[in-house]
Amino acid sequence: MSKVSIPQGTRDFSAETIRKRNFILQNIRSVFELYGFQPLETPAMENLDTLMGKYGEEGDKLIFKILNNGLSDPKNIEKAKAGFDKLMEGKNTPELTERALKYDLTIPFARYVAMNHGQLSFPYKRYQVQPVWRADRPQKGRYREFTQCDADVVGSTALLNEVELCNIYHTAFMNMGLRDYELKINSRKMLVALAEMCGGADKMIDITIAIDKLDKIGLEKVKEELAQRGLVENQITVIENYLNLTGSNEEKITAARALFSQNETAAKGIEELVYVSSQAGNTNISIDFTLARGLNYYTGIIFEVKGPATVKMGSIGGGGRYDD
Amino acid sequence: MSKVSIPQGTRDFSAETIRKRNFILQNIRSVFELYGFQPLETPAMENLDTLMGKYGEEGDKLIFKILNNGLSDPKNIEKAKAGFDKLMEGKNTPELTERALKYDLTIPFARYVAMNHGQLSFPYKRYQVQPVWRADRPQKGRYREFTQCDADVVGSTALLNEVELCNIYHTAFMNMGLRDYELKINSRKMLVALAEMCGGADKMIDITIAIDKLDKIGLEKVKEELAQRGLVENQITVIENYLNLTGSNEEKITAARALFSQNETAAKGIEELVYVSSQAGNTNISIDFTLARGLNYYTGIIFEVKGPATVKMGSIGGGGRYDD
Repeated sequence: MSKVSIPQGTRDFSAETIRKRNFILQNIRSVFELYGFQPLETPAMENLDTLMGKYGEEGDKLIFKILNNGLSDPKNIEKAKAGFDKLMEGKNTPELTERALKYDLTIPFARYVAMNHGQLSFPYKRYQVQPVWRADRPQKGRYREFTQCDADVVGSTALLNEVELCNIYHTAFMNMGLRDYELKINSRKMLVALAEMCGGADKMIDITIAIDKLDKIGLEKVKEELAQRGLVENQITVIENYLNLTGSNEEKITAARALFSQNETAAKGIEELVYVSSQAGNTNISIDFTLARGLNYYTGIIFEVKGPATVKMGSIGGGGRYDD
Repeated sequence: MSKVSIPQGTRDFSAETIRKRNFILQNIRSVFELYGFQPLETPAMENLDTLMGKYGEEGDKLIFKILNNGLSDPKNIEKAKAGFDKLMEGKNTPELTERALKYDLTIPFARYVAMNHGQLSFPYKRYQVQPVWRADRPQKGRYREFTQCDADVVGSTALLNEVELCNIYHTAFMNMGLRDYELKINSRKMLVALAEMCGGADKMIDITIAIDKLDKIGLEKVKEELAQRGLVENQITVIENYLNLTGSNEEKITAARALFSQNETAAKGIEELVYVSSQAGNTNISIDFTLARGLNYYTGIIFEVKGPATVKMGSIGGGGRYDD
């Protein structure tokens, strides 16, 4: 065992690190419990067809697939060869891989709810603290095996859930002494309204994808990308005005009301943001109209958490409502 | 998601089960800590060559291998095809699978020690409570993903370690109210001595494999298997006499001393058993000369734990010294 190594993008955790991590994870678990969420644990592996097609094309490529066993067994060789040919065409291959490591905790949770619908009482509030696996290129702060801490509610349309999730973030971070974190919120309805205002609803995805990059590439590049995606000058001006809404939460809301005037979708989105930010006992909430998030299934309030500026870590939390 | 399912041999754990499991696992963790073992966590996946060849031919087949990503990428297709051909010949294929899910916690621990030799102080006592994966045929009480709780010492030849491990079992089971469990111990040296006495050391593996089946197939079938493995009648009689050593721990020791008379290896094994059973504060220890265990790397005391007879679960714990 002289040249042994550990797989790229994975880590051993020694006693010292485990103790620190347990402090953090136990704090998060106990806050989840405090707010009435119940623990759930799902297996590391899921059936491949449960996972495929749920994370976009890019996501599918990052799923770790598990090779079926006994493929070289004479009775399986024929099937295995057919499966391999499909794999070489870039296709999904139950003949070769029936199972895969879970990519996040959301889809396994949805699978659990679908399988146990009759036994659960709704609203069902569950939390899960488990590792997930992604065949990402390993780089600073990005691992192929890492732990996610999720709390989700299913079976309730109440905005009170969002308020509660803001309070969970706040309680967890205050307990850990992270006073300077920032909880950004937006409503996906604002982006729908923006698309309506400037280009018809069909441009919503293009606008969202471009805005989602603002943090990384800056306003000028976002405008370039919008142009490349077929938006014309006066549309881009509308988007720029939207992205430039600044000030305190109250000032942004007032400015957004003026910008969107009679747009009904925007009115709903603003109402959500006002309700959540005013009801939550969370003083670190910042309404951020530039927050977009990549996942297109979000329908309402979306969240993103940043650590203090001194911690150059990007997003350390996020989520949102997906009602459909 | 109407026909969703969970992979065979895996389980979801609901809140109720998680709370019960946590009671048990936390008890085990805290007993390990009480005895000075430090926590370690290793990734779910290991490099395939770390795992292959460590669990025997049968074990190799039960390892869940992870398909490399990007195999259908034009630049990888050539390599992937070569890898697949090897796989069809039943060979290990880094071109197709570089990684696999861990099969136990022992080999990852050995890999960790090999990689971090310079940073560790010895004796290094670590515990690990993590899931492992085996592509076993799922059946009652056997799962493809299950949790192991291991405590190992590296860098100490002292028999005191065995005494401590006996006490750990006892403390953990007493804390959980499992008063009727049984901790069987034997020394691998007794099996070496038995082979020496009756057929030369080269028969040790054959004898061990046959004896290991005693529980399942009974004495007559063990004798048949010994005969099939080339042992002759008077050799089988010696083994039968050995297997029939009964009574209290003291009675068995006395009888074993008589049976092996001047055999030095047996004398060492008996000394180990007397020391461990007399020093441990564990009143559930039963010396069992028929205990063999499948793994051939054991060199000294071996352990196996059985629940109360009413719990028909087979072995619920085990291990042993492997000095080499």
